[in-house]
Amino acid sequence: MPQLAYVDGRIVPLAEARIPVEDRGLQFADALYEVAAVFNGRLFDWPQHLIRLRRGLAALFIDFPMSDAALTLQAKRLVAANGHADALLYLQVSRGVARRDHGFPADAHASLIMTVRRFDFAQRVAQQRTGVRVITVNDMRWRRVDLKTTGLLANVMAKQDARAAGAFEAWLIGPDDVVREGSSTNAWIVQDSVLVTHPLAASILAGIARATLLRLAAGAGIAIAERPFTLAQALAADEALLTSTTAPLLPVVAIDGHMIGNGTPGPMAAKLAALVWGDIAAQTGWHTAA
Amino acid sequence: MPQLAYVDGRIVPLAEARIPVEDRGLQFADALYEVAAVFNGRLFDWPQHLIRLRRGLAALFIDFPMSDAALTLQAKRLVAANGHADALLYLQVSRGVARRDHGFPADAHASLIMTVRRFDFAQRVAQQRTGVRVITVNDMRWRRVDLKTTGLLANVMAKQDARAAGAFEAWLIGPDDVVREGSSTNAWIVQDSVLVTHPLAASILAGIARATLLRLAAGAGIAIAERPFTLAQALAADEALLTSTTAPLLPVVAIDGHMIGNGTPGPMAAKLAALVWGDIAAQTGWHTAA
Repeated sequence: MPQLAYVDGRIVPLAEARIPVEDRGLQFADALYEVAAVFNGRLFDWPQHLIRLRRGLAALFIDFPMSDAALTLQAKRLVAANGHADALLYLQVSRGVARRDHGFPADAHASLIMTVRRFDFAQRVAQQRTGVRVITVNDMRWRRVDLKTTGLLANVMAKQDARAAGAFEAWLIGPDDVVREGSSTNAWIVQDSVLVTHPLAASILAGIARATLLRLAAGAGIAIAERPFTLAQALAADEALLTSTTAPLLPVVAIDGHMIGNGTPGPMAAKLAALVWGDIAAQTGWHTAA
Repeated sequence: MPQLAYVDGRIVPLAEARIPVEDRGLQFADALYEVAAVFNGRLFDWPQHLIRLRRGLAALFIDFPMSDAALTLQAKRLVAANGHADALLYLQVSRGVARRDHGFPADAHASLIMTVRRFDFAQRVAQQRTGVRVITVNDMRWRRVDLKTTGLLANVMAKQDARAAGAFEAWLIGPDDVVREGSSTNAWIVQDSVLVTHPLAASILAGIARATLLRLAAGAGIAIAERPFTLAQALAADEALLTSTTAPLLPVVAIDGHMIGNGTPGPMAAKLAALVWGDIAAQTGWHTAA
């Protein structure tokens, strides 16, 4: 079955899915995106993605007239048409196509593209057992990374640095040695049984998996602190974790080559992972074969 | 005559010029661009654009196998095919098309697009007589703006702020109140007959028009200082200026509503404008009808 994509109202083979070269997403990164998980053929935490998208569109003054209901319908159609049980839906809204000029065009219409790619979530369950390694790099990004824009080159370079170092992720360090988040994940530590993550701010993305974990942890009576933590505090933490749509919960067992705790996934990570995968199973019926 | 564009080896009508939705330029702003002026049908300062492009490609580890000679040939072909005497050539090289994943793809091939749009340089000669107004905004960009990447949303928002304020440009202010540059132009002041502009750094773009003006000014015996200057120093300056490929030299007569000098273009601006337009005329034979 060919991969299918959605481009401005039509479902077409991915190999033929194209956008005009003067799309402002291409020329200015004047675009927002979302990546939503599909488990068992079902979009997961989809309403939260819509809320974040709308918030970004409003902040950037992008007029996107499609209703949530219509967008949801098209997203579900594309997911169904692709036929993958486990997948990632990628959605991008740009300010539209216009003759190149920095300021907002008077006459552009927001453009929407969506793609669906099969994704192996079971690998995450396996990675959870061993944990993953992260490195740290200076946060080079712009000052509004709370907006989920496609201007991701700093994230690309950080992720590539991680890969070159044999690590899963790069944590981005801000002033005062604060760990902000990963290049495509949120960052967490556990200290004295308290789950700690950076508070919402212009300097981090409001991850959907982050919000979900906070909700699940609170529901399970786990102590939570949304406060900045430093790299030194992370290195001395009992445990470390990361979350994202594509990695719902992974224990971090080493940072810059320094073992966290005893260098293996800790008890809080196991507890949280059970909550996270339990929530996914409850909402979507998904169970790994692994 | 239809507008024409170049997409990966072919000249096609601009209206049909499209790129795949999984181009990394679209999904990650993992791309570099150049805008070169065409005067009298001739590319202006083209070798300097090529040098900057190659420097960026090297910094981002983008493998772009096309030679300078081949790229120049294709650029000139596209300029000729469009047939505009005065125009802007837009050129973009992305890391290529690949399934979305932050790290560098193993198998992508860099993609090249070029467009040519007619541009009215004579309007700049007219604007030079009255001067333009700028506002200032905090510099929200990432920390490697010396790389001419397509991650331009902070620039877009700044330019839009300027437009909303009835100004031509927004100057981007860094820490310590330093004027770094404009959203798409370099920034200059004149103090006691010395021409001052921010030194080359990761926090400004190495503008081609900036380098050209430095060369021309030096050749004319004008004192030059490449050093940071603050907004307070700009407000107290004898004159202020901006330069870019699309605005080779414009006097700035007001910053945030405060008049610079007596609020009209000064003698240094007139002298530099004569040098800049003289250089363009000498290299391309261009003369404005205005």
